[in-house]
Amino acid sequence: MTKMFGYKVAAVDGKARRGVVMTARGDIQTPAFMPVGTAATVKAMLPESVKATGADILLGNTYHLMLRPGAERMARLGGLHKFMNWAGPILTDSGGFQVMSLTGLRKLDEKGVTFKSHVDGSKHYLSPETSMDIQAMLGSDIVMAFDECTPFPATREVSLESMQRSMRWAQRSRDAFGERPAHALFGIQQGSIFPEQREESAEALKGIGFDGYAIGGLAVGEGQAAMFDVLDYAPGMLPDDKPRYLMGVGKPDDIVGAVQRGVDMFDCVLPSRSGRNGQALTRMGAINIKNARHRDDPRPLDPECTCPACTGYSRAYLHHVFKANEIISSMLMTWHNLHYYQELMAGLRRAIEVGALDDFAAAFHERRAKGDS
Amino acid sequence: MTKMFGYKVAAVDGKARRGVVMTARGDIQTPAFMPVGTAATVKAMLPESVKATGADILLGNTYHLMLRPGAERMARLGGLHKFMNWAGPILTDSGGFQVMSLTGLRKLDEKGVTFKSHVDGSKHYLSPETSMDIQAMLGSDIVMAFDECTPFPATREVSLESMQRSMRWAQRSRDAFGERPAHALFGIQQGSIFPEQREESAEALKGIGFDGYAIGGLAVGEGQAAMFDVLDYAPGMLPDDKPRYLMGVGKPDDIVGAVQRGVDMFDCVLPSRSGRNGQALTRMGAINIKNARHRDDPRPLDPECTCPACTGYSRAYLHHVFKANEIISSMLMTWHNLHYYQELMAGLRRAIEVGALDDFAAAFHERRAKGDS
Repeated sequence: MTKMFGYKVAAVDGKARRGVVMTARGDIQTPAFMPVGTAATVKAMLPESVKATGADILLGNTYHLMLRPGAERMARLGGLHKFMNWAGPILTDSGGFQVMSLTGLRKLDEKGVTFKSHVDGSKHYLSPETSMDIQAMLGSDIVMAFDECTPFPATREVSLESMQRSMRWAQRSRDAFGERPAHALFGIQQGSIFPEQREESAEALKGIGFDGYAIGGLAVGEGQAAMFDVLDYAPGMLPDDKPRYLMGVGKPDDIVGAVQRGVDMFDCVLPSRSGRNGQALTRMGAINIKNARHRDDPRPLDPECTCPACTGYSRAYLHHVFKANEIISSMLMTWHNLHYYQELMAGLRRAIEVGALDDFAAAFHERRAKGDS
Repeated sequence: MTKMFGYKVAAVDGKARRGVVMTARGDIQTPAFMPVGTAATVKAMLPESVKATGADILLGNTYHLMLRPGAERMARLGGLHKFMNWAGPILTDSGGFQVMSLTGLRKLDEKGVTFKSHVDGSKHYLSPETSMDIQAMLGSDIVMAFDECTPFPATREVSLESMQRSMRWAQRSRDAFGERPAHALFGIQQGSIFPEQREESAEALKGIGFDGYAIGGLAVGEGQAAMFDVLDYAPGMLPDDKPRYLMGVGKPDDIVGAVQRGVDMFDCVLPSRSGRNGQALTRMGAINIKNARHRDDPRPLDPECTCPACTGYSRAYLHHVFKANEIISSMLMTWHNLHYYQELMAGLRRAIEVGALDDFAAAFHERRAKGDS
């Protein structure tokens, strides 16, 4: 069968690429930001609203979904797309990152990871093989290889051991994934901040062969400067003709810098989580709506923004509903933040198309330096 | 100036009336259900979604709004409609009901009520005059007279004293309201379950003269049978050519019975509060989505319902997001319940138009008796 997944580059500007990821469930314009729908919902948003912000693809978390509602149940119910009423593509992570974060609740060996559910304490197991099974039951369009996200900081030795195990797991993931023409499997580069390990990891992944390549082990506390140092070389180690996905990133300026360094895909809980916490992310930087200075302010968050929060409501209203713990606060602030992220990605795509990415980035930083005025 | 408020009856069926309340901000088809937007939001709903359910008018709570964000602030910001992004008519209560419910936090005399804010403990005052002022600052289209909602049960003597004070307050409300051609003032009948007191109250209100008449002091614990006993005679004591509003009612079967007895307008937190608590109100009766029997159920809440919750999601999904404490649970369940209420009102209006209200009510009760099958 013909592979129903592909990637083509439409334009380049320096290292940055303007492309399209083609899936059986629709195209993804890149550089792309993927909102996070952890438990089969992008928190405080209806899926049609997420679509309206300009999102082409969502991310789902295998760890959360396997525990609740459960992968077998999801399969019986027709898969994640039908369950959560999202017809477009979905990428699922492998579950590895969340499981590794369960301090004291997990046991890792070469075969895989045993862990306890944060929901009810029940015992579960994840390995490359079970992760591939579960992601298939969810119906994920882009499946991530099961790996270990190497903690930061890690010594050269610890990082090497972790990366090499992840590469063995990458091969097992590839083997277990099998031939699924309508679905894609992405490998994940590890190697912490060590160029020779990033290179070894990239070569291992290319030897196995994947539909796309993720850069893992970043945005884990190393800071933007160290992350950009790695991104100065790591994307170039991965194939030019496949999409590159920087996992768990990030703040708007992280994304601009990563796009300039050749990254195509991003995901992050920041816009939705910040929104629920009363922080608006805007062209002018972050605005904390809970601040008393907004109490009497008739202006919108951003007069140039076309999202429902900015076209329908004053800062005074958004301040009021945040203080009153009203659900509409999370709804409007999340919508604004996701809209802003998608507008940022659209701006980056247009800038690459016309070869003006550096000008775009300069204007982006200049506007933020002026602040909320 | 010409009064920009009116009411006309288009059809009657028994005691029931199919009418239109005309306001400067648009028509209200009656019998009407008014969703409650306590703190300048119908909880978990965007106003355009409330409109999409079929609501012509919202209710706002003066008590909550005067404390937060405050009536003066609201006036400076352009009033409640602009603040909450709702262009249609708004009815505000007088604040009396909430203030009277603040056990231990209030002091009542002939002039008015002193009370402490539940938000920050600050001291406030409400009287007929200040309530009229505050409702004017909010920009309410339909202003309610300041009264005391007589508690239930009350002795004949306590009820009489309370009702007669409310009638003196009704006169003071009328005097303080003044001439406001674009706005309406409703009086509130009291008298508990005593026919002669209901009659005395109605006569007092008619003597003062209002744009509409509410039936107060019901749905306060007396039970449906006792409420219907009062509704067998109380609406008929009020003018035929003005709208009649039963405050704080109610469950779907309360509304059907009250419409049959001649009531035109209703408000209740039940559909929104139940939705947030995982209870769906449907033609088949109430469905508790948290019940484990829904865990694997691929069916919608109600296959005949056209709301987004029923057209987009299974009971299994609604069960999952309720159990996972996801905000979308409140969003979808509230939407369904408000949609169901508005569909019920539309059905009642059509039935009155064609003289088939008793058949409609019989079918309504029969379908509920069958239950969720």
